[in-house]
Amino acid sequence: MTMTLAAQATSTAHAAPSSLPLSSLLEPASIAIIGASRDTSRIGGVALDHLRRLGYRGAVYPVNPRYAEIGALPCYPDIESVPRTPDVAVLALGADEVLPQLRRCHAVGIRAAILYASGFAEAGEAGVARQAELSAFARDSGMAIAGPNCMGLANLTTRAVTAFATTFRAFPPQDGPGHVSLLTQSGNVCAIVYATGRQMDVGFHQFINTGNEACLDYADYLDYLAGDAQTGTVVGYVEGLRNGPRFIDAAARLRAAGKPLILLKAGESEAGSSATQSHTAVLAGNQAIYRAAFAQLGAMQARDPAHLTDLAYLAGFHQRGAGGRVVVASVSGAMGALSADLLSAAGLAVPPLDPALQQRLQAAVPEIGGVANPVDMTGNLFNREGLAYTVLDHLAADPGTDVIFLYATAYLLDRVAGELIDVAGRTSRLIVVATTGEPASRARLAAAGIALFPDVARAAQALGTYVGWLGTAAPTARWMALRAQSAAGAAGDMPDASLNASPDEYQAKQWLAGFGVPIGVEAVAATPDDAAVAAERIGYPVAVKVLSPDIAHKTEVGGVRLGLADAQQVRAAAAGIVASASRAMPQARQRGLLVQQMTNGVCELIVGVTRDPVFGPAMTVGLGGIFTEIFHDVAHRLLPVDREMAREMLSGLRGYRLMNGFRGKPAADIDAAAAAIAALSDAALALGDQLGEMEVNPLMVRAAGQGAVALDALIVMNGQASGGESHGWEH
Amino acid sequence: MTMTLAAQATSTAHAAPSSLPLSSLLEPASIAIIGASRDTSRIGGVALDHLRRLGYRGAVYPVNPRYAEIGALPCYPDIESVPRTPDVAVLALGADEVLPQLRRCHAVGIRAAILYASGFAEAGEAGVARQAELSAFARDSGMAIAGPNCMGLANLTTRAVTAFATTFRAFPPQDGPGHVSLLTQSGNVCAIVYATGRQMDVGFHQFINTGNEACLDYADYLDYLAGDAQTGTVVGYVEGLRNGPRFIDAAARLRAAGKPLILLKAGESEAGSSATQSHTAVLAGNQAIYRAAFAQLGAMQARDPAHLTDLAYLAGFHQRGAGGRVVVASVSGAMGALSADLLSAAGLAVPPLDPALQQRLQAAVPEIGGVANPVDMTGNLFNREGLAYTVLDHLAADPGTDVIFLYATAYLLDRVAGELIDVAGRTSRLIVVATTGEPASRARLAAAGIALFPDVARAAQALGTYVGWLGTAAPTARWMALRAQSAAGAAGDMPDASLNASPDEYQAKQWLAGFGVPIGVEAVAATPDDAAVAAERIGYPVAVKVLSPDIAHKTEVGGVRLGLADAQQVRAAAAGIVASASRAMPQARQRGLLVQQMTNGVCELIVGVTRDPVFGPAMTVGLGGIFTEIFHDVAHRLLPVDREMAREMLSGLRGYRLMNGFRGKPAADIDAAAAAIAALSDAALALGDQLGEMEVNPLMVRAAGQGAVALDALIVMNGQASGGESHGWEH
Repeated sequence: MTMTLAAQATSTAHAAPSSLPLSSLLEPASIAIIGASRDTSRIGGVALDHLRRLGYRGAVYPVNPRYAEIGALPCYPDIESVPRTPDVAVLALGADEVLPQLRRCHAVGIRAAILYASGFAEAGEAGVARQAELSAFARDSGMAIAGPNCMGLANLTTRAVTAFATTFRAFPPQDGPGHVSLLTQSGNVCAIVYATGRQMDVGFHQFINTGNEACLDYADYLDYLAGDAQTGTVVGYVEGLRNGPRFIDAAARLRAAGKPLILLKAGESEAGSSATQSHTAVLAGNQAIYRAAFAQLGAMQARDPAHLTDLAYLAGFHQRGAGGRVVVASVSGAMGALSADLLSAAGLAVPPLDPALQQRLQAAVPEIGGVANPVDMTGNLFNREGLAYTVLDHLAADPGTDVIFLYATAYLLDRVAGELIDVAGRTSRLIVVATTGEPASRARLAAAGIALFPDVARAAQALGTYVGWLGTAAPTARWMALRAQSAAGAAGDMPDASLNASPDEYQAKQWLAGFGVPIGVEAVAATPDDAAVAAERIGYPVAVKVLSPDIAHKTEVGGVRLGLADAQQVRAAAAGIVASASRAMPQARQRGLLVQQMTNGVCELIVGVTRDPVFGPAMTVGLGGIFTEIFHDVAHRLLPVDREMAREMLSGLRGYRLMNGFRGKPAADIDAAAAAIAALSDAALALGDQLGEMEVNPLMVRAAGQGAVALDALIVMNGQASGGESHGWEH
Repeated sequence: MTMTLAAQATSTAHAAPSSLPLSSLLEPASIAIIGASRDTSRIGGVALDHLRRLGYRGAVYPVNPRYAEIGALPCYPDIESVPRTPDVAVLALGADEVLPQLRRCHAVGIRAAILYASGFAEAGEAGVARQAELSAFARDSGMAIAGPNCMGLANLTTRAVTAFATTFRAFPPQDGPGHVSLLTQSGNVCAIVYATGRQMDVGFHQFINTGNEACLDYADYLDYLAGDAQTGTVVGYVEGLRNGPRFIDAAARLRAAGKPLILLKAGESEAGSSATQSHTAVLAGNQAIYRAAFAQLGAMQARDPAHLTDLAYLAGFHQRGAGGRVVVASVSGAMGALSADLLSAAGLAVPPLDPALQQRLQAAVPEIGGVANPVDMTGNLFNREGLAYTVLDHLAADPGTDVIFLYATAYLLDRVAGELIDVAGRTSRLIVVATTGEPASRARLAAAGIALFPDVARAAQALGTYVGWLGTAAPTARWMALRAQSAAGAAGDMPDASLNASPDEYQAKQWLAGFGVPIGVEAVAATPDDAAVAAERIGYPVAVKVLSPDIAHKTEVGGVRLGLADAQQVRAAAAGIVASASRAMPQARQRGLLVQQMTNGVCELIVGVTRDPVFGPAMTVGLGGIFTEIFHDVAHRLLPVDREMAREMLSGLRGYRLMNGFRGKPAADIDAAAAAIAALSDAALALGDQLGEMEVNPLMVRAAGQGAVALDALIVMNGQASGGESHGWEH
């Protein structure tokens, strides 16, 4: 029994977050600002100005030997002179002064600090050394330290705003508590989403930007927010995560609590990826694995900053019921049609309404309108009192409708706002309105639970992503349970995981077979004559391959012959293989010949496990040949993957039709394929940290009921060069 | 020699637009409003109110027997009493009154009219009849008639605003002339794009919404705008076109003049498509062919209304040079990375800057920033006077850069606006700025030639589409020349186009061979014994097929046998085929057996021509099997298609790699494939109106230098049922 990789990763993570005083950092009742300034345009003055203007009610202690007071507040010469120990110290100081001052803060009992200073890991070798010292101090002191190189934080509910973003002046926080918490790896993105969100009346709670994450990292904050009662939604921006397993735990806690996690990831392009690397010195990582992980954890994935804000806004209406069937109502046939197009493109259904309902609508809607879906109420909305109410009330009562999507110009919207609010009061369904121009009724509509977007495309896009998220609760919970089981070593009846450091194809297959990966009839032969004997026993036709842990590309060295029909052919082929491989790679260790029964099937799969530097072992499944190489038609999942998940991976492939009786072919044995995939997941986890990569290519899937066979397999142990035989997944 | 389809379509189009007085309609010096009202909320009052408020300088004649004057204007009891003949009459009347009043307008010499009334083709059988009468009147009278069921028109330059959209009150037109003309098949979309465009300071010229197009259709207006000196850009919304060939001519004229045509098409989804059908009673048509036609004509295709407006705005900066290589400059590493991601996704290149340039930038940019591309100027833009100027000036001088893309918050943007304007004055390159919030410097920046977007995603999307359009001038011109040649019957040495009404496979191939479509060695045999004789002559292996114009699915009736190796096999197979086909379809005419040499190759293509109801004959090319059936990997073009276009179609396929030496396969004979495709285009055009559909499936493409062979062919004459053998293209 070996410890699983997931469990190991968790155990090596740094201090559990519960031990860190994050509430001092994020909910401070008192704040010291070391390096405070009277100049509100300077970094040491902005936070003071925000705290005063925005009405923070806690104690504020400016620290600066040059002043006796700043504004109405007494200013202290040093942190030791501050009369009561503040919850958090904000260090508005240069990089050189940070550590000495932190030590003094720690000495007086301060448990949390915010570091604006740049000049750490992002700034050359000296900076890296300085950051290492800072990290060590944080670990030893147990202080909760934000930054360095961050913009400061803000609690918009308590108005503990220490971020130096000028955006708080242009866009003040909401009155009262907010429920959306921002958690970004960029101060600017934090400020931008805050500003655009405020323009849509989003109410914010935490404004967290993580900076260099020298002490607290993204997962630490996420874990805190998962347990924070005030936070209803977390909106994040990610360049690269440092601790995948802790992130997974926190994200799953959020999902289980029904709190949306909405993420924008940078680095989709080469230029974007190189920019994030230079920006925060974190590898942007394998985007495909990030996307897969986010999906698997039930996070909504935003395409761009506006989409991120829109999702934060829409998530605020989560008390209303929603689902994938949308009815479109419009004051314009064209805008109805365009809305239907955009909603369909966003993955939503815009099905025709029930004929009986259409008939009821016909009585209300003008003849030139439409009642099928989209419903075109026409510009007569303008003239006919009660038309909007009648139509929308009918739609709200329709059991076949999950969401009402309305387009109206701001002018018409204002005229029917009252009717719309009445309908909203009578239904618990989500109502989404797209409009053009700025309606005067915006606040009234939002208060009545009606989501309002300035553009149909943005509304459709946000709704599509949001509805997709609604379906993620169950699969995320299922996977988390599976992961916990695996981490707890529930699979106690696993075979011995020991495997030599450079297994050849035969050894790899034999070992995988112990986990249930199906392998064919094959035998190792020392000589061409032995090979012929083995072939006689196996039955013809056979394949013969050179067996060597050092020869990655067997075909290229003439090391493979297929479809051999008798003993003579086998002997000749085997002799040729040995000679040719010896000639091509004289240094390679040859362990003889592998004689293998030939097998046909319906289709070939490639199933691989790689080790993601952030998230740990991840599986990739695809159909062979052009499916993966030309169309990149592959599915990714973090391990563990069980049979049900394996079936989902397969059915998510565009090429899945090939497995399902395509053009007269028999259906493939999908159960057997799924079982083989799940077995490979077990095997990979059993190797734990020894795992480098693992691949079955091809997994021949035969007709339904006839099973699957791993025709070739490769296991590369951690630290061992793969030799490049592993399939180059193009993500 | 037969007349080509394109020529026929042109000759059957209705009256050439030059004969219609569109300038009276669109540039009126005087306007009568029949059914004028004092109530500015009524349809007969809005236009009067607009004309007065917006400062139209022409004569305005209200007509209504109920009033002696409206406002300061005398009101006339009938059109006959109006003292001077107005250029255009606006009929603010119900459907019943339209035709009688039109006849009176015509009688007094009025040459143009605008019809608001609904109750025509969109409103049942009676409406259809009414519209037919209206169309006939228009044809006979030669009047230029807009509508019915339209919102009215507007010339924003002369302020001849007869559209009843209230949007002109909220968003007044620009001072002075505008250059963007709107041409939409929906009044609401016209008003929305106008409103959103005005918010971005777009200056508009024509505001045309076509309504039911009973008299003037979309192509008529487009043709007018192509020749209108004041119109620099046409922004359109299309549900369905009535006259493809005239649209093609007009769009090509616009492209040749370098005037952008920017189109949004509704009906991408089933629901959207059904909505447009009920909305304007036009088939939304085959979306894939629309997309192909728009691309072939060099029109920019917008995804949604906001994208449409953004493109209209960006096209206003066309005097600046642009291209596909973008340098991103930002005040935030994260926003730089996200911008690079979004620009790359939009098809633009964000290449690393030249090392020497990076070195020059290094001197200006703070250490924590970046200089590779994206260039991160950091928030220090704020403190360092001249930083923005220095960086942007360096970038503007870089020969490897086509476009400068800047992200800055509105606050920072205002602070560096002066530096930015200086740089813009020193370069002719396009500068695109994405910002958050509303900068005070917007108007100054725009006046200096700097395009400003409120969101990075919208900016990137618009830039990508715009840059793509820049490359369309040459291919569009090439195709138009080819089309003109074909229409002029330049291919005078074409073989006889006569073909019987139900050609079988052999006849179809023989006829296609006359145009240069390569066919294999094959022969018709009357009996199994004849088949064996033919096979002996052809050489083995052969295929034998039943030959019948009535049997579409030969395989399904046991009508095909492949790989026959000797005379005996051929005889047996032929007898079996005849018996089995006779049993399955006893009524089918059998014309004997087709004996065909077996041919292998590198890949199989499907090449088909269908007859699009709007655009005429269109070609579809794809690789066979899963490429078309699972991945819908196909290319479409309107005919004619020559060899160069055929090569472009092939190289645009995702599966093109399969033809280019994929995984050790030989490269395919792409020249031969292109020649065969072009020959099929010639053949289809030669059939003219007799063409129903035509398909070669498969076209076996052999290794380079070894040619291609049409292994099966189908020609369905116009009006003949296809029998369903033609490949079901899934668009």
